[in-house]
Amino acid sequence: MSLPIFRRIDHVGIAVRDLDASIDFYVATFGLTVAGRETNDEQGVREAMLLVGAEQGQSVSDAPGGASYVQLLEPLADDTPVGKFLAARGEGVHHIGYGVDDVAATLEQLRADGIRLVDERPRHGSLGASIAFLHPKSVTGVLTELVQAASAST
Amino acid sequence: MSLPIFRRIDHVGIAVRDLDASIDFYVATFGLTVAGRETNDEQGVREAMLLVGAEQGQSVSDAPGGASYVQLLEPLADDTPVGKFLAARGEGVHHIGYGVDDVAATLEQLRADGIRLVDERPRHGSLGASIAFLHPKSVTGVLTELVQAASAST
Repeated sequence: MSLPIFRRIDHVGIAVRDLDASIDFYVATFGLTVAGRETNDEQGVREAMLLVGAEQGQSVSDAPGGASYVQLLEPLADDTPVGKFLAARGEGVHHIGYGVDDVAATLEQLRADGIRLVDERPRHGSLGASIAFLHPKSVTGVLTELVQAASAST
Repeated sequence: MSLPIFRRIDHVGIAVRDLDASIDFYVATFGLTVAGRETNDEQGVREAMLLVGAEQGQSVSDAPGGASYVQLLEPLADDTPVGKFLAARGEGVHHIGYGVDDVAATLEQLRADGIRLVDERPRHGSLGASIAFLHPKSVTGVLTELVQAASAST
């Protein structure tokens, strides 16, 4: 496989206790733009994707495929992965997502490289993306997400 | 001040035990490109900036001002901030850096907004940038760095 495998930093995933208050904070203080909100029952979270760097008055749809986001994650219950993270460590960075061209092919490559995978095959992520997680034990302690944006899955 | 304040995700700062081994891992596994290595005595780290998404054969100098990096941080001693972080939590995400147009003006604005600052004024960061840290207590548990890239400081 030709380099690079990671195309961009897609998002920083941050565990928060109060999604609505945290959205308001990032929008008002740092000028981020809400690109989408959803509930992901499979992952046990309510979440929002906040676009970094969109100009005021610019439509979110104008954002390039290479856009970067802050993803805010509020757990649906204490016994979810994000709920356990909050209980153990408090609010903070939960994972990092990197853009890849083909998440399925990348998973195959990384499995062959001996990287420990959380997801053996791609699943549905935010904003219609196809995603998969790599285990932090294999990636310098960082829960690492591969993200194939919806616009890239042709 | 007009929005947005955060222009882009500049870098993800990751605390590691072995800088050289971690550089080799990110380059070989994910196709990142070493953009710079330095020792920052003030912050007590040896570090490397790894460019995300540069094409093979592309010079680092071709990278746009809006480039994103993985920053790997190895402490110079156990009693440094990154050394204490490693002892308490192990390897993982230490901080997030966001690109801003003017770090001094942004600090003033955020101070006026009541954000708790780690740095009262800008100091020297990686790759010639002017930087300042915000306290995680004010930013959803995330140690947050403002980065004015060297190319933006005209």
